[in-house]
Amino acid sequence: MDWKHEISAASRRIAGHAQVTPVMASAGLGLGYPVEMKLEHLQHTGSFKARGAFNTLLSTDVPAAGVVAASGGNHGAAAAYAAGALGHPVKIFVPEMAGPSKIALIERIGADLSVVPGEYANALTMAREHEARTGAMQIHAYDAPATVAGQGTCFAEWDSQGLQADTVLVAVGGGGLIAGALAWFQGARKVVAVEPETSCALNAALQAGAPVDVPVSGIAANALGARRIGDICFGLAQGMTSVLVSDDAIAEAQQRLWQAHRILVEPAGATALAALSSGVYTPEPGERVAVLVCGGNIAPDPLTA
Amino acid sequence: MDWKHEISAASRRIAGHAQVTPVMASAGLGLGYPVEMKLEHLQHTGSFKARGAFNTLLSTDVPAAGVVAASGGNHGAAAAYAAGALGHPVKIFVPEMAGPSKIALIERIGADLSVVPGEYANALTMAREHEARTGAMQIHAYDAPATVAGQGTCFAEWDSQGLQADTVLVAVGGGGLIAGALAWFQGARKVVAVEPETSCALNAALQAGAPVDVPVSGIAANALGARRIGDICFGLAQGMTSVLVSDDAIAEAQQRLWQAHRILVEPAGATALAALSSGVYTPEPGERVAVLVCGGNIAPDPLTA
Repeated sequence: MDWKHEISAASRRIAGHAQVTPVMASAGLGLGYPVEMKLEHLQHTGSFKARGAFNTLLSTDVPAAGVVAASGGNHGAAAAYAAGALGHPVKIFVPEMAGPSKIALIERIGADLSVVPGEYANALTMAREHEARTGAMQIHAYDAPATVAGQGTCFAEWDSQGLQADTVLVAVGGGGLIAGALAWFQGARKVVAVEPETSCALNAALQAGAPVDVPVSGIAANALGARRIGDICFGLAQGMTSVLVSDDAIAEAQQRLWQAHRILVEPAGATALAALSSGVYTPEPGERVAVLVCGGNIAPDPLTA
Repeated sequence: MDWKHEISAASRRIAGHAQVTPVMASAGLGLGYPVEMKLEHLQHTGSFKARGAFNTLLSTDVPAAGVVAASGGNHGAAAAYAAGALGHPVKIFVPEMAGPSKIALIERIGADLSVVPGEYANALTMAREHEARTGAMQIHAYDAPATVAGQGTCFAEWDSQGLQADTVLVAVGGGGLIAGALAWFQGARKVVAVEPETSCALNAALQAGAPVDVPVSGIAANALGARRIGDICFGLAQGMTSVLVSDDAIAEAQQRLWQAHRILVEPAGATALAALSSGVYTPEPGERVAVLVCGGNIAPDPLTA
């Protein structure tokens, strides 16, 4: 696949739909060296996932029955937002365990929402029944070319905003975002994958030589807790640098972003920075580093709690 | 005074000390028109006040006794940060009523901190005694040329970042920030002053024809509750547009920034946007508007509450 071409096409497609997110360079994070950041948590619905959702819906014929997703998280919110913005019917099945903060987020977007008792698998079953019954389409959360190309627009945009870094650190869940980074940069910048020790599907796959199922837990699991890395990501990730961070390091990086810059993010949004602040990844002398701040849907909601 | 010259000099002076803050254009605030924003709440210590503090300290001979301030708010934090960063001793007197969140902010900066029983006036008395006894200097919070020129760098920077707007809305407390805007733009862009109905020293002064004392209260009072507008601001503000917003409108704008873009700010930081979202200021057809997001030191702290 000509990823540069696909991502450039996606950038044109989603222009005016996705938010162009701001960038900054900070010397105030207490690391002893500066860090460029892209504040992608300011994206519509609080994460990069709106990019993939818009690119998917704008590059396919959406059925009259619209869009369906099973998710109480960032993907569900993004799918609901993009479908709604483009005028498609949208049905979201949310597991009850997603909690009131994320359920309220999806409600505010105006999606037709069903809260399903129990956990994610139950919501997924309901979503598949809805798909079979109505003909509605699902947007894949990470392992589809249109999703990866959409997430890749984040890095194309960053380049156009004057990114200087030699090395870009990206948090990994199912791998859609980092696949977009690898697909866009094509080795022109080093990409470092950062995963929680307790949700590390990419790291496990790289060690095993193939995608494998992993257990998932920890404070970032509701955003990064994919049980298996996507095949597209795995294909692009060969030979890349992969590091793991503890929950304590993630929580400390959350505090650091908030205290230094009043950037309030969910644990997943601080995971890439945690690799630097915990020393798990230490730049070489002269190596310029950048961190993608990927998600801001913290719970509980600080303005309603 | 040649303000353009002063502000340009201040920009060179504080470069590398103050944070270059990011800008964005949002069509997602539900207003029916786009709004440019500068995210100045990501500045060191969470408000624009670090600019004026750095400019003051870098344009004068700071005595060996260092710097003193009486403030439990954004000015005190900025004075402590700038003095500390430049290696000057710094003493801050904080009124007990400032509350644990802002006291913790100033403690983290590492200032020599005394918490004074009671309200602001008691802390100010202590600070003046310290000044008289030691020879330490005070940084004026808003009504000094170096402070105004420092705050003006925020708008010079915004111009250099490609600001498009015809009209820039700015929240007003003592008037240092909006004086910086008026001094920089010199009529090239319309500046609109936005104050809480219950803390409106500029509006009252414009109506009375001279600075007058006003009562201050309301949710933004700990940042915008100046009892009297600064003379420099009043001199620059003749004939400008001044609007007032209710506390309810400020709280709604806070919610709107958070829900649309995961931008979490204190009430003062949402006050300028509140003029648009409440309809108190409605742009003419074709009028492009911008909002300065000026402060993020919300209480209680969402990560320690």
